[in-house]
Amino acid sequence: MFKLIKNEGKARRAQLTTVHGVVQTPAFMNVGTCAAIKGAVSSQDLKELKCQVELCNTYHLHLRPGDDVVRDMGGLRKFMCWDGPVLTDSGGFQVFSLAPLRKITEEGVYFSSHIDGTRIFMGPEESMRIQSNLGSTIAMAFDECVANPAEYEYTKLSCARTLRWLYRCKDEMERLNGLENTINSHQMLFGINQGATFEDLRIQNMQQIVELGLDGYAIGGLAVGECATEMYRIIDSVEPFMPADKPRYLMGVGTPLNLLESVERGVDIFDCVMPSRNGRHGHVFTISGKRNLINAKYQRDPAPIDEQCSCPTCQNYSRAYLRHLFKAEEMLAMRLCVIHNLYFYNRLMETIRASLDEGTFGQLKKRLEQTIDMRI
Amino acid sequence: MFKLIKNEGKARRAQLTTVHGVVQTPAFMNVGTCAAIKGAVSSQDLKELKCQVELCNTYHLHLRPGDDVVRDMGGLRKFMCWDGPVLTDSGGFQVFSLAPLRKITEEGVYFSSHIDGTRIFMGPEESMRIQSNLGSTIAMAFDECVANPAEYEYTKLSCARTLRWLYRCKDEMERLNGLENTINSHQMLFGINQGATFEDLRIQNMQQIVELGLDGYAIGGLAVGECATEMYRIIDSVEPFMPADKPRYLMGVGTPLNLLESVERGVDIFDCVMPSRNGRHGHVFTISGKRNLINAKYQRDPAPIDEQCSCPTCQNYSRAYLRHLFKAEEMLAMRLCVIHNLYFYNRLMETIRASLDEGTFGQLKKRLEQTIDMRI
Repeated sequence: MFKLIKNEGKARRAQLTTVHGVVQTPAFMNVGTCAAIKGAVSSQDLKELKCQVELCNTYHLHLRPGDDVVRDMGGLRKFMCWDGPVLTDSGGFQVFSLAPLRKITEEGVYFSSHIDGTRIFMGPEESMRIQSNLGSTIAMAFDECVANPAEYEYTKLSCARTLRWLYRCKDEMERLNGLENTINSHQMLFGINQGATFEDLRIQNMQQIVELGLDGYAIGGLAVGECATEMYRIIDSVEPFMPADKPRYLMGVGTPLNLLESVERGVDIFDCVMPSRNGRHGHVFTISGKRNLINAKYQRDPAPIDEQCSCPTCQNYSRAYLRHLFKAEEMLAMRLCVIHNLYFYNRLMETIRASLDEGTFGQLKKRLEQTIDMRI
Repeated sequence: MFKLIKNEGKARRAQLTTVHGVVQTPAFMNVGTCAAIKGAVSSQDLKELKCQVELCNTYHLHLRPGDDVVRDMGGLRKFMCWDGPVLTDSGGFQVFSLAPLRKITEEGVYFSSHIDGTRIFMGPEESMRIQSNLGSTIAMAFDECVANPAEYEYTKLSCARTLRWLYRCKDEMERLNGLENTINSHQMLFGINQGATFEDLRIQNMQQIVELGLDGYAIGGLAVGECATEMYRIIDSVEPFMPADKPRYLMGVGTPLNLLESVERGVDIFDCVMPSRNGRHGHVFTISGKRNLINAKYQRDPAPIDEQCSCPTCQNYSRAYLRHLFKAEEMLAMRLCVIHNLYFYNRLMETIRASLDEGTFGQLKKRLEQTIDMRI
């Protein structure tokens, strides 16, 4: 399923074969929380934007429209008209970040819907059943994501519980994949490494989850309050314990520089709301840094966001026009900038892959790292 | 410039040749108020949606980004990346419907910006200068649009003043078109018939504006408070006084049935915010009537909005998915429905033109008029 093509230091060029298509890694997954990319970008658009994998959120889709509805519509891929691979998160992160009044037990988590306050229970089995109904290509294990900075003792207890949940996730997914009417009977399961910023807990937890022989391994609980240096330290500490023959997914990360730094440290897959969220606020990425299109200096600027960019936005529209659309509060502003940003991220990963193929990733990183996260 | 191809009763099949392209009529212009279609639809999208003419608003663009900015960017067509014809309204309608604290004098109108309260003056010359800066294909005369029901005496005085303004518009446009740096030196001017619902005032005004020998004639001040029957009565009363060899534009109209009824009465060109506004609220048009996609009955409906429709939305997405997007407040919902509705309107005009070519418009109207404006 996962084939390593080439290494450069710890950086890996590989491909992940799934029942819904092949993913060339390193790859950035495009986030469509509620079965749509925010900023009026459709699955048809994603095809033009070099997107390989769309990520959707279990928590949001369970609440609305309901995973039973998605299941009845043939699963998420048919529902949102995306024929490539889909990864669903487990709902864990949202339960712990969005839902009020939550109560954690050994069984799972009681919480209130952030939409209408409905009392809901979600544990490992529920998360697996929802993700099975959604019919995603890759399901994520149900975990507790502890915010940083975290207490050592609490983190230790939480990791132990999340590990027990992981065994239950694996059992339930095996059962669901074996059912006759399962939408995707080849659904893959990725485990999630936790342990906050404590290296010993992180390493122990990684060793424990690797024992389950899952389809892939994620590093969770990073980019949730700690600085980038801390994040890189944790990746460096757990990476040696991740199996070389399984994909490695750094959850919720990050800036273009974060991606370069993490690829260098051996990560294969990423996701982040940054390109779509920033785009909706007029913050657009280029190889030379990030622009704020609302800036007055763009009022009469006839150039595209990035003269080197081949995205549909840069092929047609000027900074002056985009700035006007933001000032006039036209939705089109958001769409055009989200399109640019997603294309930028997907194209950056393509460039990274090409450099790994050629053995020049080190040079690429050196060339980009000084400017790519700057404001211009 | 305007060539009548065929008549069926009073209905006309014609083509309007402009410096920015040929418009096949009857035609529906797609409204991009602030140089963008509301609902995140771009000029690139419009090409796929069979749009022939984009309409933009002088009042809005004068306020933001400023017509000086648009001029510096090469005019509206270059600014918004639309290479077809553009019609700009005169700003009159918005001055009288949107701007607070207005004061009308012989010279023009003083009003406050609805955005920041700035005190602004606009008269016939200012409107022409702004439209010249915008560089549209067709400019509209600066008029007062009297809301219905109107006072007879006030309407009479208003019509007389609007007529005096029309002479000033014509003079100023001739001067502007003759300047060396004019963006579109072939800018056309359409006069606007007013007179509320008073047939004698309407007819007298029409006879007076026709004397100026303009490039086209609009019927304004309808669909502003009166019922459809009243509107049709006014069209019937002024139509015999409109020159046969000039395009006729019914401003701000209307529903699909309004279009059929007005084409039958000899109108060539239309514009209306209805397809985009309704689309943004989940109300979508079909030949058999209008659907409200928010309706619970669509929760698990796998069919497209309209099985007969070839628009990008109907080619891909189900009612169930669109309903979900509205419930989840995803912008994509609006975009997909606006796309469908604009395609529907533009396609309806195409069907009307084909029926006129074949001499079967009467049958087409008979087939559609019972259902097309119904709710289903």
